[in-house]
Amino acid sequence: MTEATLDIVAIGNAIVDVIAQADDAFIESEGLPKGSMRLIDESTAAILYSHMGPGREISGGSAANTVAGMAALGAKCGFIGQVADDQLGEVFAHDIRANGIAFNTPTRAGEPTTARCLILVTPDAQRTMNTFLGASQYLPASALDRDLIASAKILYLEGYLWDPEEPRVAMRAAIEVARAAGRAVAFTLSDAFCISRHRADFRALIDGGLIDILFANEGELLSLVETDDFDAAVATIAAKVPCLVVTRGAAGAIAVVDGASHSVPAEPIAQIVDTTGAGDLFAAGFMAGQVQGRSVDDCLVMGAVAAAEVISHYGARPEAKLDQLVRARLG
Amino acid sequence: MTEATLDIVAIGNAIVDVIAQADDAFIESEGLPKGSMRLIDESTAAILYSHMGPGREISGGSAANTVAGMAALGAKCGFIGQVADDQLGEVFAHDIRANGIAFNTPTRAGEPTTARCLILVTPDAQRTMNTFLGASQYLPASALDRDLIASAKILYLEGYLWDPEEPRVAMRAAIEVARAAGRAVAFTLSDAFCISRHRADFRALIDGGLIDILFANEGELLSLVETDDFDAAVATIAAKVPCLVVTRGAAGAIAVVDGASHSVPAEPIAQIVDTTGAGDLFAAGFMAGQVQGRSVDDCLVMGAVAAAEVISHYGARPEAKLDQLVRARLG
Repeated sequence: MTEATLDIVAIGNAIVDVIAQADDAFIESEGLPKGSMRLIDESTAAILYSHMGPGREISGGSAANTVAGMAALGAKCGFIGQVADDQLGEVFAHDIRANGIAFNTPTRAGEPTTARCLILVTPDAQRTMNTFLGASQYLPASALDRDLIASAKILYLEGYLWDPEEPRVAMRAAIEVARAAGRAVAFTLSDAFCISRHRADFRALIDGGLIDILFANEGELLSLVETDDFDAAVATIAAKVPCLVVTRGAAGAIAVVDGASHSVPAEPIAQIVDTTGAGDLFAAGFMAGQVQGRSVDDCLVMGAVAAAEVISHYGARPEAKLDQLVRARLG
Repeated sequence: MTEATLDIVAIGNAIVDVIAQADDAFIESEGLPKGSMRLIDESTAAILYSHMGPGREISGGSAANTVAGMAALGAKCGFIGQVADDQLGEVFAHDIRANGIAFNTPTRAGEPTTARCLILVTPDAQRTMNTFLGASQYLPASALDRDLIASAKILYLEGYLWDPEEPRVAMRAAIEVARAAGRAVAFTLSDAFCISRHRADFRALIDGGLIDILFANEGELLSLVETDDFDAAVATIAAKVPCLVVTRGAAGAIAVVDGASHSVPAEPIAQIVDTTGAGDLFAAGFMAGQVQGRSVDDCLVMGAVAAAEVISHYGARPEAKLDQLVRARLG
């Protein structure tokens, strides 16, 4: 096993978020499942876009948000994801590289366009996401940079990638590359609806011992185990992964690492504006702590600090200097 | 003179802002004149973009920001400006229409792309703007919707439009249409460097009695009159326009209307994040007050409230409900 030159390589949907304010009546009139992520086709996206308010475009994508957060915390990161040869693809590629993240997945020519997620943020700071996967769903296994994957301590995957067919195949290939190189595999369950679509696959990955670090929120964990009993769900999954991290919104988060439980309260925050990216940035803080060799408790605090920053403004990428926030909090 | 169906029609550069944080060292290393707007070509834009940090894309354009603010304050607005047939053009068109603003300038096919303004915001909240005018510079006089212009109480023009040749010609045609219909013409001087490029033209418009409402900041007014004496500059220009509004940053703003002077302090604000759009939104608040038939003092307060909102976050379009802020302030 050669020494890792990167801390993490993430594979994820390469998405530009289009974020608009909306009220509950709008969410209802559009028939949207508030707080969730749904997949939409291009024509549905066009119709919803024509109905929604003025937006701001900010690079997103769950795993991409996570590595953006880790890079802001000093980790050496790479990203693999598919954009099209268009202006939003340029925006995504610029932003990820401007974060200091290695990104060299070849651009895909022709239709469809770069993925967009139409995010409606209600006054309660909840986000309802409507994703047109576009080019992102055509990430082929052949586009994987195997050397890049083998060079990173952690391979990080988002559950959302299981929705489109090509990336699902690519993910399995990436896991093989990482494990053959002796690297850790981290996985986020992404969304309760996403789990309902791919529960068998996710369970097989976990049962097969392919996942070293698993991120979930409370609802996702319950959906995965198909139970209402949180403690039972934690016990079931913690027995199968070396590191389980479960975020619980305002109630903070827990981690079970090698059988030992840890918890952290949520960071106090003056005003929650937009919860988009909270889970992504919690994962960023936690794993940034891990690659720095910090204690599990410190990793949890770093997750909480990063999540608190990202929900204090619109957009799922950090705006403040996360490393300074962590230093102020942990020294 | 038929009754106006719109309160205002603005003609301006149709620009999407790309807003990134930057430190003073970056501004210096790129050789940028901090706090100003400079015009750049596409290749310079590409180089600067490759150097700058991750951005967020938010529709901008000076006059477009002003009508977005006025629409948020209940005014009936139209906008005329040139975008290309590309994703950023779609973003601009969507956002302006989503603000309830009439916008029907035909999209321009082919190169160049929709205008972008690369805005670097330093920790002191100053913005340094680098504008690639792209399609915006090709707004032809033939694209003017003369009925739309004639239907609005106010025609609003930005000084920035004097930089490209075609819109400059179009502006003169638009002024003729508005005056023939008995409408008011409002004008913003935009930028001190812009004035240095077009001082003779701007003075000729003012001396010719073609401007009814003139907006400037302190530096622009001094540049226009080529003096260091603020009071003398105000007196010189106020003698030539029925309504002169001069913003003075943290010192508030003044208006001289039909020879009578009025002033307003700046609104208190918890944190200034990004001063982009401060002048645009001051003009929005002031003119929204005017079309509501408010007193000059109330118009100034509305300008100050709108400007304070827009500088409290990134981006030059309002995020909060301006009408509620004004109601809370003025009743």
